[in-house]
Amino acid sequence: MPLDIEEFRKAGYKAIDRICEYYYSLQDKSVVSQVQPGYLREALPEEAPEHGEDFDAIQDDYQKLIVPGLTHWQHPSFFAYFPTACTFEGMLGDLYASSATNPGFNWSCSPACTELEAVVMDWSAKLLGLSPEFYNTSGIGGGVMMTTASDSALTAIVAARSRHIRTHPGTPLDKLVIYVTSQTHSLGLKAGLVLGLQVRVLDVKAEDNFAVRGESVKKAIEEDRESGREPFVLVATVGTTSSGAVDRIDEIGTVLREYPNIWLHVDAAWAGMTLSCPEYRETARLEAINNYATSFCTNFHKWGLVNFDASTLWVRERTLLTDALDITPEFLRTKHGDEGTVIDYRNWHLGLGRRFRSLKVWFVLRSWGVEGVRGYIRKCIALNDIFASAIRSSPDFELVTPPSFALTVFRLSPSTLTPQPLSLESLNDLNRLFYTRLSKRHDLLLTQTQLNGVFCIRFAVGAARTEEADVRRAVDVIREEATLAASAWQEVKATG
Amino acid sequence: MPLDIEEFRKAGYKAIDRICEYYYSLQDKSVVSQVQPGYLREALPEEAPEHGEDFDAIQDDYQKLIVPGLTHWQHPSFFAYFPTACTFEGMLGDLYASSATNPGFNWSCSPACTELEAVVMDWSAKLLGLSPEFYNTSGIGGGVMMTTASDSALTAIVAARSRHIRTHPGTPLDKLVIYVTSQTHSLGLKAGLVLGLQVRVLDVKAEDNFAVRGESVKKAIEEDRESGREPFVLVATVGTTSSGAVDRIDEIGTVLREYPNIWLHVDAAWAGMTLSCPEYRETARLEAINNYATSFCTNFHKWGLVNFDASTLWVRERTLLTDALDITPEFLRTKHGDEGTVIDYRNWHLGLGRRFRSLKVWFVLRSWGVEGVRGYIRKCIALNDIFASAIRSSPDFELVTPPSFALTVFRLSPSTLTPQPLSLESLNDLNRLFYTRLSKRHDLLLTQTQLNGVFCIRFAVGAARTEEADVRRAVDVIREEATLAASAWQEVKATG
Repeated sequence: MPLDIEEFRKAGYKAIDRICEYYYSLQDKSVVSQVQPGYLREALPEEAPEHGEDFDAIQDDYQKLIVPGLTHWQHPSFFAYFPTACTFEGMLGDLYASSATNPGFNWSCSPACTELEAVVMDWSAKLLGLSPEFYNTSGIGGGVMMTTASDSALTAIVAARSRHIRTHPGTPLDKLVIYVTSQTHSLGLKAGLVLGLQVRVLDVKAEDNFAVRGESVKKAIEEDRESGREPFVLVATVGTTSSGAVDRIDEIGTVLREYPNIWLHVDAAWAGMTLSCPEYRETARLEAINNYATSFCTNFHKWGLVNFDASTLWVRERTLLTDALDITPEFLRTKHGDEGTVIDYRNWHLGLGRRFRSLKVWFVLRSWGVEGVRGYIRKCIALNDIFASAIRSSPDFELVTPPSFALTVFRLSPSTLTPQPLSLESLNDLNRLFYTRLSKRHDLLLTQTQLNGVFCIRFAVGAARTEEADVRRAVDVIREEATLAASAWQEVKATG
Repeated sequence: MPLDIEEFRKAGYKAIDRICEYYYSLQDKSVVSQVQPGYLREALPEEAPEHGEDFDAIQDDYQKLIVPGLTHWQHPSFFAYFPTACTFEGMLGDLYASSATNPGFNWSCSPACTELEAVVMDWSAKLLGLSPEFYNTSGIGGGVMMTTASDSALTAIVAARSRHIRTHPGTPLDKLVIYVTSQTHSLGLKAGLVLGLQVRVLDVKAEDNFAVRGESVKKAIEEDRESGREPFVLVATVGTTSSGAVDRIDEIGTVLREYPNIWLHVDAAWAGMTLSCPEYRETARLEAINNYATSFCTNFHKWGLVNFDASTLWVRERTLLTDALDITPEFLRTKHGDEGTVIDYRNWHLGLGRRFRSLKVWFVLRSWGVEGVRGYIRKCIALNDIFASAIRSSPDFELVTPPSFALTVFRLSPSTLTPQPLSLESLNDLNRLFYTRLSKRHDLLLTQTQLNGVFCIRFAVGAARTEEADVRRAVDVIREEATLAASAWQEVKATG
């Protein structure tokens, strides 16, 4: 029985109440869902019901069947991956947006969607200190909201390929090369798969903190060009997933000045939000971004307090997108579109329809204010500093690379817990065992990675409710599990 | 000042109340927003506020500044484009999903997201009568939720290209050709732009009701292959945008049996929902879809009562997607993923992170029931029949092509309103003038199109609140504007 307006009011209040309950009890839940594969299929009928069901029962099933199957990314002890933002303002923005759903593909199909997106992208550009060249008001550059950083990067790479082919007509696609580094997010390799293009993965060194340097880029370009390949885009990262590395955008930018046809896309999906704080702009290489980036992306849905999805992409020239992606069949023609007086965002992205994402960004920026956003970023970094100091001061742990913003990458490297120093291989084995123990716990969550052959553990702060006590408790748990892991490992060694 | 839990409860109730008000007053609003380009930028500050603002004021600004800038796709007199669904159940599904935001890229990062998606895709497959080969329980085929039909088609085309290259190693990308028809949604040409591949646009004939036939496909394939090109995917449509044409999937499928390496993607973004009703399955060519489609897409967010975005894609072999798109770096490895016991949907689509979209589908299917969904589809088609009959029985209008499901394409073709029969050119001019008049009205919205050089007007029924009275009123308005258009046109002719 479809809900009528008054039934919706009742169901809506109940949903709001349930969400309040969820947040009151969040810290008592297991961070990671404890369900087993297939749990939900067993609990549900094999097909949709013939007759409509009572909505109360449906909402109760959400509580009973879905909540236990969630891993709680907003749990104060969620230190895994990177954060995925969730704020009450973001939720309400999404709620209003879905109450008047429309596909937003051009200005007239809902002017507010396009207009607000153009405005909040400028607000966000200013918040991050981006050059006015990227503002929508520039009329030349501009910003657009995408689903994810993968979407943003893919769009940039498509536009780069399109420009390359326009300026070098007849180039076989098989000659083109996308540049990424061994630390680039999977979006780099995935773009290669999607577009069917070659990807060259540039190596990085531990001594450079896993950032790619200008000279590696220059060497690769020269090699490729000599052998007839044509690099046309480089994806650089500010804040890599594995270790938070910040590529040397300054050096890369200088090199690329000699190769103006190579597009520089800067993926700052996670760390881009640090640019909201003036004191981190140097570390996050804002000046180089402003000088050299052809496109720049950060995800407000990661560390920017806006609910998923809210990836923001800026380009220095909007025509680079529209020249690559403009399609206007008769049924999409409109008076304002024909006149060119408005932005038709459908020509700035890969699909046609789009959600009204800017509303939640607007709600968050207004409710938190610039000061509130900065306060949150600073707090996360301060909490990570507490964690990193604890690791640094412990004789049985080591930082694998310097902490980056709110991310610490560390490993167990016993000096008291095992009798003698261990080889890399043994250390990797020990750390795998240590991580396996950690990942079985219900009260916190971290993730694993590898850095040039070193198995290590990532600790990322970002859930809006994480406090100092949560971080200190994590340190205790990690120490305890380290001791147990080391002794278990020694037992295995002794008996093996 | 960020909202705390109790402030959120208050703000949430208010949002729910505002949405109720919106729906109580919807029919009194202008269907199309009457704002002018730039209206919102003028009303907003140039940057985000330094200090957080009161959320009451923000919600009030939504009412004051955003609502007037919306075109109301849920208005009962919205007959433009195709519908974009919006139900209370869909909204609440989205609300719960955003209350526990997570990026859903693999099973363990929130098991419920993957599990529910796998289940509701099977429920939906059954609702539509798809072959069990497409069910997730088949272990071979399967279904996945995407953002839009463009996303679904692009994914299918990428997988098709990847398969083609695997089976024909060394094929230059420049030889590959995507097949679409002149009636295919812009997603076809856009996929060509995105992937940098050739697109061959097959002509269709009015006598075939703008559907592509098997013989055209066969002829094109033979021509292309003779000249060294390699068609590898064909996008067929069930319910084209311009006229609701249903391509001859049966004939195309038979032809493609001879070319098993050509992937048949069936885009039924709009009309796919008619498959929920047994009586439309023959018209919508279910049997041929089940026999021949490599992949099939429909958008629940169009005519399926689920809020945007909710595009559903099924493939006959899931490995066709994962072979093309699997990326598993160290930091994304999980126990269950390594064991292969779960679906990791990130390898079924182009990005990494994804929204928890299945929740709103689950809510809608349970609350409406199969019976409710069918009742809604049948009602829309019945309302369109009323409209089409009125057009058919009027001496001054003609149907340009037979009505298709809930879409009527018509034009003014005066036998009483003008003194003598008009040429095609004159008819097109007259209809443009007629459409311009119609599109200036606030009380209803239709869209224009062209069919093989004939300018025509589309009338699509789909808003969940449209009733017979709305359709009859639309007929009256259209008749009235036709009379005025014809006399204005004659005046221009007389004085010109």
